[in-house]
Amino acid sequence: MKINIPMSVPKNKEKEYRKNLEIATRGTGKLMMFAGDQKVEHLNNDFVGPNIPSDVADPEHYFRIASQAKIGVFATQIGLLDMYGRDYPKIPYLIKINSKTNLLTQDQRDPMSERWLQMEDIVQYKKQSKLNIVGVGYTIYLGSWYEADMFGQAARIIHKAHQAGLITVIWIYTRGKSIKPEDETNIHMIAGAAGVAVCLGTDFVKLTYPYDVHSKKVANDYKEVTTAAGRTGVICIGGKKQTCKNFLQCIHDQIHISRTHGVAIGRNIYQRKLDEAIRMANAISAITLYDHSVKDAYDIFTGKKELGK
Amino acid sequence: MKINIPMSVPKNKEKEYRKNLEIATRGTGKLMMFAGDQKVEHLNNDFVGPNIPSDVADPEHYFRIASQAKIGVFATQIGLLDMYGRDYPKIPYLIKINSKTNLLTQDQRDPMSERWLQMEDIVQYKKQSKLNIVGVGYTIYLGSWYEADMFGQAARIIHKAHQAGLITVIWIYTRGKSIKPEDETNIHMIAGAAGVAVCLGTDFVKLTYPYDVHSKKVANDYKEVTTAAGRTGVICIGGKKQTCKNFLQCIHDQIHISRTHGVAIGRNIYQRKLDEAIRMANAISAITLYDHSVKDAYDIFTGKKELGK
Amino acid sequence: MKINIPMSVPKNKEKEYRKNLEIATRGTGKLMMFAGDQKVEHLNNDFVGPNIPSDVADPEHYFRIASQAKIGVFATQIGLLDMYGRDYPKIPYLIKINSKTNLLTQDQRDPMSERWLQMEDIVQYKKQSKLNIVGVGYTIYLGSWYEADMFGQAARIIHKAHQAGLITVIWIYTRGKSIKPEDETNIHMIAGAAGVAVCLGTDFVKLTYPYDVHSKKVANDYKEVTTAAGRTGVICIGGKKQTCKNFLQCIHDQIHISRTHGVAIGRNIYQRKLDEAIRMANAISAITLYDHSVKDAYDIFTGKKELGK
Amino acid sequence: MKINIPMSVPKNKEKEYRKNLEIATRGTGKLMMFAGDQKVEHLNNDFVGPNIPSDVADPEHYFRIASQAKIGVFATQIGLLDMYGRDYPKIPYLIKINSKTNLLTQDQRDPMSERWLQMEDIVQYKKQSKLNIVGVGYTIYLGSWYEADMFGQAARIIHKAHQAGLITVIWIYTRGKSIKPEDETNIHMIAGAAGVAVCLGTDFVKLTYPYDVHSKKVANDYKEVTTAAGRTGVICIGGKKQTCKNFLQCIHDQIHISRTHGVAIGRNIYQRKLDEAIRMANAISAITLYDHSVKDAYDIFTGKKELGK
Amino acid sequence: MKINIPMSVPKNKEKEYRKNLEIATRGTGKLMMFAGDQKVEHLNNDFVGPNIPSDVADPEHYFRIASQAKIGVFATQIGLLDMYGRDYPKIPYLIKINSKTNLLTQDQRDPMSERWLQMEDIVQYKKQSKLNIVGVGYTIYLGSWYEADMFGQAARIIHKAHQAGLITVIWIYTRGKSIKPEDETNIHMIAGAAGVAVCLGTDFVKLTYPYDVHSKKVANDYKEVTTAAGRTGVICIGGKKQTCKNFLQCIHDQIHISRTHGVAIGRNIYQRKLDEAIRMANAISAITLYDHSVKDAYDIFTGKKELGK
Repeated sequence: MKINIPMSVPKNKEKEYRKNLEIATRGTGKLMMFAGDQKVEHLNNDFVGPNIPSDVADPEHYFRIASQAKIGVFATQIGLLDMYGRDYPKIPYLIKINSKTNLLTQDQRDPMSERWLQMEDIVQYKKQSKLNIVGVGYTIYLGSWYEADMFGQAARIIHKAHQAGLITVIWIYTRGKSIKPEDETNIHMIAGAAGVAVCLGTDFVKLTYPYDVHSKKVANDYKEVTTAAGRTGVICIGGKKQTCKNFLQCIHDQIHISRTHGVAIGRNIYQRKLDEAIRMANAISAITLYDHSVKDAYDIFTGKKELGK
Repeated sequence: MKINIPMSVPKNKEKEYRKNLEIATRGTGKLMMFAGDQKVEHLNNDFVGPNIPSDVADPEHYFRIASQAKIGVFATQIGLLDMYGRDYPKIPYLIKINSKTNLLTQDQRDPMSERWLQMEDIVQYKKQSKLNIVGVGYTIYLGSWYEADMFGQAARIIHKAHQAGLITVIWIYTRGKSIKPEDETNIHMIAGAAGVAVCLGTDFVKLTYPYDVHSKKVANDYKEVTTAAGRTGVICIGGKKQTCKNFLQCIHDQIHISRTHGVAIGRNIYQRKLDEAIRMANAISAITLYDHSVKDAYDIFTGKKELGK
Repeated sequence: MKINIPMSVPKNKEKEYRKNLEIATRGTGKLMMFAGDQKVEHLNNDFVGPNIPSDVADPEHYFRIASQAKIGVFATQIGLLDMYGRDYPKIPYLIKINSKTNLLTQDQRDPMSERWLQMEDIVQYKKQSKLNIVGVGYTIYLGSWYEADMFGQAARIIHKAHQAGLITVIWIYTRGKSIKPEDETNIHMIAGAAGVAVCLGTDFVKLTYPYDVHSKKVANDYKEVTTAAGRTGVICIGGKKQTCKNFLQCIHDQIHISRTHGVAIGRNIYQRKLDEAIRMANAISAITLYDHSVKDAYDIFTGKKELGK
Repeated sequence: MKINIPMSVPKNKEKEYRKNLEIATRGTGKLMMFAGDQKVEHLNNDFVGPNIPSDVADPEHYFRIASQAKIGVFATQIGLLDMYGRDYPKIPYLIKINSKTNLLTQDQRDPMSERWLQMEDIVQYKKQSKLNIVGVGYTIYLGSWYEADMFGQAARIIHKAHQAGLITVIWIYTRGKSIKPEDETNIHMIAGAAGVAVCLGTDFVKLTYPYDVHSKKVANDYKEVTTAAGRTGVICIGGKKQTCKNFLQCIHDQIHISRTHGVAIGRNIYQRKLDEAIRMANAISAITLYDHSVKDAYDIFTGKKELGK
Repeated sequence: MKINIPMSVPKNKEKEYRKNLEIATRGTGKLMMFAGDQKVEHLNNDFVGPNIPSDVADPEHYFRIASQAKIGVFATQIGLLDMYGRDYPKIPYLIKINSKTNLLTQDQRDPMSERWLQMEDIVQYKKQSKLNIVGVGYTIYLGSWYEADMFGQAARIIHKAHQAGLITVIWIYTRGKSIKPEDETNIHMIAGAAGVAVCLGTDFVKLTYPYDVHSKKVANDYKEVTTAAGRTGVICIGGKKQTCKNFLQCIHDQIHISRTHGVAIGRNIYQRKLDEAIRMANAISAITLYDHSVKDAYDIFTGKKELGK
């Protein structure tokens, strides 16, 4: 695994950065991020409902999966770490620093997601809690009325995270009254977001992917995105829960055709009973981190095989 | 009493946090909060009127009740502590850090309640005044145009309160032009607020409860809320003054069916003459803290029985 | 004189606070505040005009009155102290920390009055200038779009003034697009403002009084206000210049019927020639501070008697 | 020359303040300010055009005049000092701390002029550059939507300038959607601005003057302004370039009838060839500082006489 | 090469400033800036398309050109330095401190570009990374609703950059709802922007140039701009990709007729294959820095000649 340490990481933090990146990517350079910030972003909509097993309603469900599956990092808000971290000290965490609910519509206010804590607080928290915190995350809504504010916050968070040897993931969505709905998944637009990410100096950028029209052609076109991102690793969102096999195929195409550097999956993992969720997470890691075929991964999902590492 | 100390409480403040939580919950883990921030929130409307005894008009009424009844904490603004605290040094206080009046309508401005003091001021105030301050409170209006600002303030307050060994209660109301009036008491929506609370890492969250349609079914449905809150304790508001027996039954159902962790009662206690208010507070504590039956509690209210502890 | 020292005054500043309060109230516990912030609030309208003697136009008129009459404190902006303080070092001053002009109408912008200096600056200024500064003042427009901002500024000013042993007076007016003009002098509304004041922990609150409809009944109804204020002293504004005798009667009723703790008078004093202004100020002090009858006070105003102390 | 040192100047800076005031007023107590902030305020409109000599276009024109004429202070932005100060170290400078262009119309946004640097920066800059900086200037738009912001900035700048022994000039214009155009030069309104100035504690205030209707009566009415300003010195703007003789007469009337403390002249000086500009500046100083007659001053302008001091 | 060191550069940083200016201008006093901030400003639009070679899509393309061509400085966002700087340590960098995307239209919000990092961060970054950072850049939209905010940020950035011995380039565009589209390239308006630049004290200002109507007359009229800028060097943007010969002629006229101090070229260089891009950059440097004729420069572009120095 070849590591390109950002220049914003000072000499005396290079070892720390290297360690955090190795943990986060399980030594592969690829990132399998288990995304768990939905309790704020989507309120309780993702956690109860006709097709959602009752396990899911308990916030601890996240931690049970994250501690038993072979994930890279579990990304969530600091409060959940406050409440459950003591019982799950080994999970590699990525603290999501901003979050907003879905209550305000775009007509009412363009999206703005405010930083909850300063990086200084996070760095001190890591030290004090001894939790296995390897990085931080932050969302930017590109094209929003508040783009300028979020650029400022994101740039400072990335800079200060690197100063402390932490890795960074920036969620970027083109969203706001200036963006036509169909452009939110336009590949050329997403490539623009990828270019912004590398200009911000983030290690990884979490971007959307046009699953609805997925095909080999789309996966191929999506190379515009990974090219624009340069040395910043692109990781694609999973989005709404999808049919497993098809979804695994999408991820495989992202990694092997589009040349993404990983995935950020939430609902497609946690909206299942614990054991199924763990198997799904492992199936995703199989493809993302360990170069397994879709078939192998599916066998891991169904329980026919186990994920080796 | 089993305590889950948040990771944001540093090692050298764990003892302080434990002590504060034990005081606040009278060693039961449940919180009976006497809510007294209405002089700002409702101006003088709650304190004079046809059915309100004249005792109530004097701000000291709050303190007389709080010092004589068996409450958990008395939550109010710092100014009242400034003015009356010297004469009531033993009451366990929770300082409500933000407050707003009801003068601005939602049409004029979405609700925003601004922090009055920094946590550093509160921590120093506790030390200097030697008052029995065990925690702090803060209100968030979820879905308001200012949600982002309040998230930032709340997250920092919780983090810094824990750093000082204080407990936290976050009031969360879904309110603003984005929220339909009927959704303010929608259980699924309240569950969303509960999920936000645990992501913020607060010890307790004060939430609304649909008293108007109260029934065993509602109390049962309300489990969605306590489940979503995970390790954050849900405490329900009391709302407008209600018939006593019915109200006590509601609380009993909240605790025993919905599995809430306490209550936050204001008007149902203080809009009475002193002795009746004390008996009412004790009746509520009987159910909330000491597992009494509704009948027992009602006997305490009427003066037939006394609350033991 | 019994003093209730706020808990926000630290032990080592209690002596300083006690001294300031005694100076401000001339040892009576009642406050006769000579209000002199109109050069900003009303521009030059109060200082030149058909019925205004030419003495009034010179800013030094304020200082001549304040130094020769038996007032409690003279409240004004720091700049006037900068310019005239050296020649009037003995006047007890209360620095009014915020001020705005009357140029912007409510239709254009809801009222917002911004803090001019930080409390740290004021405290250092007192020390450096050796002026007899005993306290600070700040205006809140309750119900304004900017209520939240002013709550934050006021709470911090009160807290930090007390930390330095200074006394505080908060001006509270219900004003803004949310307030119907007739409600600005509604007693129940004013009582709400009084309740806010005690929640902020201010020593005194300057409130409006319905002079237009003054009668014994009104004075009696106004007890709702002083009751709501609890341990915070209510002082009433004087408002526009009024017939002297009637005005003195009003003040007498405020003190003896409504149980206010003083007055805040500007135009009714300074819109007169120097000697008449001094006699008027003394007449007001006679009633407010020294329990004189209206008749006695009027004799002091006309020069028949002198104010003893 | 009698000096009234503001109380905000600390003891150990009184000597510095006295020196700066003496330099600025050339030992006369009156201020002849050469105003040079138009390159931002009016962009290039004042510097090229049919009746404007080509000398004027070069920013150095300002410095050539200021270094050769007998002015009090040259007021301009810090950037011009950065670029030309090294070659003109002897000019007494007053740094204009805020400036805005004329591009945004009032319909689009009420005027707001933001502080460019903190007073701490200015104080350090003076020390480091050894330039002859004697004071600072700041503009307030009274009645603008942003009045509150500018009040806060101005008050702090004056306070901190005095703390460092610097003198202050506040430009005050009544301007914004709340102000009728004809009221911008209404004498009663300007007197209001003068009253604000003394409440802010500034040494000098730069105010408008109704040149269009100038007459002895106007000059006499203008005494309302200088009276309202009290111990703050009023200096009048020069405005657009005018016929010389008439203009000198106006200044003479301002000084001798209205009792102003000086002038602030820009275009009437610099929109001329160098030698003519120098003579014009000297003619103005002759009247403002040295009590010359209009005739004498005009002779200085035409080159028949020389200004003695 | 004669250097006018700004007064904001302290004595002990003069050597550093001199060194940075010499590097940036290759010892000529003229600045050939390779502008590379388009990945944020224009998203991916400049990097993929029918007439854009595939080399261009990779962010490293910038660095390959900048390291092999004879440019003055390469201006880009800090994140690109983070990611690629380690492999290109010798390029002279100018960090562009603010950037925005083109997604929000002017109808939605007037342009505002927010500072990403504080100058303190940049100064420390230079020291820590040992990258060859010689200066910083910042964009102001003159006439925008947010002009005041950007003035404040720009003034502080210039002041603090100079304090650290770094050079500064301010991009100024007249843009916003207050500006008619045709005025964006109006020479008199651009001259206004140039005047603002020197009042801010920046070393260089990047301004627009009316290429569409280019002629000797335009180049001559443009002297209004360089005159208004005084001792601040004007460098013109290159704008959209143009025919090479014509473009080189324009630059030659800017330097020799308009008396500009350099150029800031982006798309006209990088929207070519690597070798062609290098030759184009060298052709531009030939004219800008080394006084070559257009013909010579064109020969350098076509490869017939090589740029000597």
